[in-house]
Amino acid sequence: MEAGILSVGKELLMGYTLDTNSHWLAGELTSLGFELQRITVVDDVLDEIAQVLSDYLGRGFSLVVTTGGLGPTPDDMTLTAVAKACGRDLVLNDTALEMVERTYARLYIEGKIKRDGLFEERRKMAMLPEGAIPLSNPVGAAPGSWLELEDAVVLSLPGVPAELKGIFEEGARERLLRLVGDRGGRVVLTAEVPSGIEDESVLCRITRKVMEEVEGVYLKTLPTGFHRNTNISVRITAFGETEELAEQRMEGAKEALKRKLEG
Amino acid sequence: MEAGILSVGKELLMGYTLDTNSHWLAGELTSLGFELQRITVVDDVLDEIAQVLSDYLGRGFSLVVTTGGLGPTPDDMTLTAVAKACGRDLVLNDTALEMVERTYARLYIEGKIKRDGLFEERRKMAMLPEGAIPLSNPVGAAPGSWLELEDAVVLSLPGVPAELKGIFEEGARERLLRLVGDRGGRVVLTAEVPSGIEDESVLCRITRKVMEEVEGVYLKTLPTGFHRNTNISVRITAFGETEELAEQRMEGAKEALKRKLEG
Repeated sequence: MEAGILSVGKELLMGYTLDTNSHWLAGELTSLGFELQRITVVDDVLDEIAQVLSDYLGRGFSLVVTTGGLGPTPDDMTLTAVAKACGRDLVLNDTALEMVERTYARLYIEGKIKRDGLFEERRKMAMLPEGAIPLSNPVGAAPGSWLELEDAVVLSLPGVPAELKGIFEEGARERLLRLVGDRGGRVVLTAEVPSGIEDESVLCRITRKVMEEVEGVYLKTLPTGFHRNTNISVRITAFGETEELAEQRMEGAKEALKRKLEG
Repeated sequence: MEAGILSVGKELLMGYTLDTNSHWLAGELTSLGFELQRITVVDDVLDEIAQVLSDYLGRGFSLVVTTGGLGPTPDDMTLTAVAKACGRDLVLNDTALEMVERTYARLYIEGKIKRDGLFEERRKMAMLPEGAIPLSNPVGAAPGSWLELEDAVVLSLPGVPAELKGIFEEGARERLLRLVGDRGGRVVLTAEVPSGIEDESVLCRITRKVMEEVEGVYLKTLPTGFHRNTNISVRITAFGETEELAEQRMEGAKEALKRKLEG
């Protein structure tokens, strides 16, 4: 179950905004059992976005998550690019339109916006690739989009972190769990162990040997720079098709590491 | 002067580490006059790293900056990939070897490491693509690498943020400034303006509006932490194909900022 993330937005490339979305999604996808292969940040340029999407799908990723570019402004063009890369038309989705309408009606009643009605910029947020399922946005206006292709899913989320997380938790997580279940995902466990060693060039010999000895585990030294290192930690990640297998591998890695650190 | 960033490391894809390096570099490259086109995060896999590098160079980027994968461990393989993508051999660089040797000798004398000498994992950090210039690392052990190709430069920096910034400030920034000058980049002007505002979340709305209003400028708030902020400065960067155009945009941005701060 390989996955790719595509973050869209010039503000990320100009150093104006730190891309915390990809980081958060990376952790969520990993713990759901996906193997994230790549994160790409591109400008708000239709062909750039579509080209990375095509590349991801061409690599056989089971899941592609896009962030950003779902809003009302003309430089929000992610779903147009998704439609293009997937060979679909971009069409007005009735369910999405109802979601957008409800949101603005509520904001108007609450006195948070001055203008009611679905004018063009607002209708734009209900234009989805043909066949996509809109995901309700509990925080903002633009719905997310869940597009199932033959061998992959393209999930599109807004760039505002609270909206991205809101849609993920309320609409996407359950679908992703089902996707992982249907297609046979994996269990992932992690643990951090202090090594008592302050020199990464020495410690890495030990972690490499543990990885050679124990199958299905990944050990990473966590250096913080020589000026601060007193005791480098090792992060152990154990994978398994079942909980039991992942636990067994984790224990194996911990024991092997302990033995080699003492030896 | 288009540029691309390539961040290497499984820890970024697993959601363990937030890629603050790319964000910091994006801001620096932008203010130096580069147009950052893409940021890609890949796994510690030789072919993946080399493939993105080849793609960047094929797109005609003048500058490619890699972060991560310069250390002593076997999964540190960025420079092997740089050599591969650029058709160079990976060779022991004598200057780099002296740098690594000096660092470990110092750490040994200071009692920070227990084992002296240049064993294999340490020598590995002095293996650079043929023709690359090593950049001294004022914080850690692995030198950076500056590789000039016919039409592009590949700059490789370590993943530990303090080391990345140390090498950038001491060895890379000056070279990048010369590169921008030599290859006829954009004219870039910068100015710092006090805002009279102490809340960045308020100020950033104003700077964003100025960027929307005035073409070819980039505004960055420079907070120093709430306990010390009394008057956050704004760094204005103005770009232009000519000095005159850049100056004109700078004046436009200054006026728009003043107007919005007073309004």
